[in-house]
Amino acid sequence: MDAKDDSQPGPTVGEVGELEVLDRIVRRLPAGDPVIGPGDDCAVLAAPDGRYVVTTDMMVHGPDFRWAWSSPEDIGWKAAATNLSDVAAMGATPTGLVIALAAPQDTPVSVLERFADGVRLAVEALAPACGVVGGDLSTSSTFTVSVTAFGDLGGRAPVLRSGAEPGDVVAVSGELGRAARGLARLFRDGVDAAGEPSRAATVASGADADSDALRQRRPVPPIADGVAAAGAGATAMLDLSDGLAIDGGRLARASRVTLDLDPTVVEEGPALHGGEDHGLLATFPPGMPLPAGFRRIGSVRERGEHDVLRGGRPVPTSGWDPYADWDGAAG
Amino acid sequence: MDAKDDSQPGPTVGEVGELEVLDRIVRRLPAGDPVIGPGDDCAVLAAPDGRYVVTTDMMVHGPDFRWAWSSPEDIGWKAAATNLSDVAAMGATPTGLVIALAAPQDTPVSVLERFADGVRLAVEALAPACGVVGGDLSTSSTFTVSVTAFGDLGGRAPVLRSGAEPGDVVAVSGELGRAARGLARLFRDGVDAAGEPSRAATVASGADADSDALRQRRPVPPIADGVAAAGAGATAMLDLSDGLAIDGGRLARASRVTLDLDPTVVEEGPALHGGEDHGLLATFPPGMPLPAGFRRIGSVRERGEHDVLRGGRPVPTSGWDPYADWDGAAG
Repeated sequence: MDAKDDSQPGPTVGEVGELEVLDRIVRRLPAGDPVIGPGDDCAVLAAPDGRYVVTTDMMVHGPDFRWAWSSPEDIGWKAAATNLSDVAAMGATPTGLVIALAAPQDTPVSVLERFADGVRLAVEALAPACGVVGGDLSTSSTFTVSVTAFGDLGGRAPVLRSGAEPGDVVAVSGELGRAARGLARLFRDGVDAAGEPSRAATVASGADADSDALRQRRPVPPIADGVAAAGAGATAMLDLSDGLAIDGGRLARASRVTLDLDPTVVEEGPALHGGEDHGLLATFPPGMPLPAGFRRIGSVRERGEHDVLRGGRPVPTSGWDPYADWDGAAG
Repeated sequence: MDAKDDSQPGPTVGEVGELEVLDRIVRRLPAGDPVIGPGDDCAVLAAPDGRYVVTTDMMVHGPDFRWAWSSPEDIGWKAAATNLSDVAAMGATPTGLVIALAAPQDTPVSVLERFADGVRLAVEALAPACGVVGGDLSTSSTFTVSVTAFGDLGGRAPVLRSGAEPGDVVAVSGELGRAARGLARLFRDGVDAAGEPSRAATVASGADADSDALRQRRPVPPIADGVAAAGAGATAMLDLSDGLAIDGGRLARASRVTLDLDPTVVEEGPALHGGEDHGLLATFPPGMPLPAGFRRIGSVRERGEHDVLRGGRPVPTSGWDPYADWDGAAG
């Protein structure tokens, strides 16, 4: 399925043109509370802290999503949620997003409206004080979304990946492995007889309504837990985008420590290796109560030969590489 | 020509993988002076003013550039320069950029290195205190660059499009029409017998060395003049991305005034209708000396039937629409 094979597609962006597309989208987006919003050369945001955090992430049709499995609302939700999660992982509160979007000329305007609805729903659910303060509309052969998100540290130090100390508690907020189980379900049941992603097969098999697949399509990062972790003295933190093993390896290398995960609370399989959960992995000084939302999953050791252990045994920490591993398929 | 038809292409991004590509690019980019630079979930920037300006712009292979005419350095330069220009147009000083880039898997790593060189050269030439503080690398069937730029207002009010008053002087900084003349030269001489963009024809015809074509490929926005205009009391300002007529229309509508351009200083043709010059259009109170870099090109009138006049006669202010007008060609 293509973005244009919508049930009630209506006119395309090429038929109505940029100004009407922009007008139809902007009214669906959350405004937030910028000093100056969209419509000028730049937006202006307040930085009461005197600093601001910035992250950017691009989603591309093919390597990052398939229309057979994700609706336009899903893509909008995920583009917002994954960037909000990176802001939370610094211990910051999201304050604004800018969104650049390039769509093929035969894309129905309704697809872009539904994308904007997904952005709004995610912001309302995850970071209601945040808004879309600016953007750019382009055309491309490949549907592409690029989001940049901003946040305020509220006077606190940013929580980096590099501050974990031996003896710290390793903790996580959010569920582990559900997004990977959901994606596996889509790859298994959401394909036609030739193995190609298929909307019809996704619906017919029930994979469309699978709660894990929904988590993969619409991640629910625990945004407020990032600020709570910073307030509780977290020594290091990052967003779990590529899975506990890979992201744990990043935190371990940045902090020059080894993480030892508790095999009684971290199972082998998707919980350890699955990506796209967008929970928060953090380390806390020992002997302190963990903030609400976090649970202990291991401890920090002096740096050894490996980045991540599970019950003392090494865990591989390399992962999917978009350049080397994408097979070129879209769907 | 394709990005991969480089004379010494070397390994592709698919062959070396994301981490090595990232490593090779980051060392070529200007670091600037962020509180926290690339490598964590977010960068952290200082906002001494308590506010910051934000703009985003996407460049897509096909509608926005062709490899037959633009080198990777050109694309990097232009992606940086056009965003820096939007920051300047608020009266702000550029402080940081984040860059998301998606390249086909068969793109030589050298193309991305040369792109990074172009970004660095533009920043060094135009806004040397600015740096690239973060980014995202992805893969895509379509080479796509998305830049978000930030700036500091230094305690001044942002100069919006909406503040022009009847009686104000209309002024411009930067050359008018050169980029459009350069692009016209490329469309005329940089094509093969079938009319397709051709690197060989571009070089053989000398269009590659044409100084106007160079301005189209590597615009030189007068970044410091933006702050100077704000300091001199500019009442409205914007970046000339789509040409004096179209962008003048935007300023006129936002300010609810009519601009009357002086036919003795603004010629018909590229100076009036050509895009991509990335100069600054600003309005100033009457009877004051214009800041260095700006020259008078007309005056602001009470709002009439038309947005823009030239010697009292209406100038059309509609323009190129990427959704409606791109013919789908790449090259």
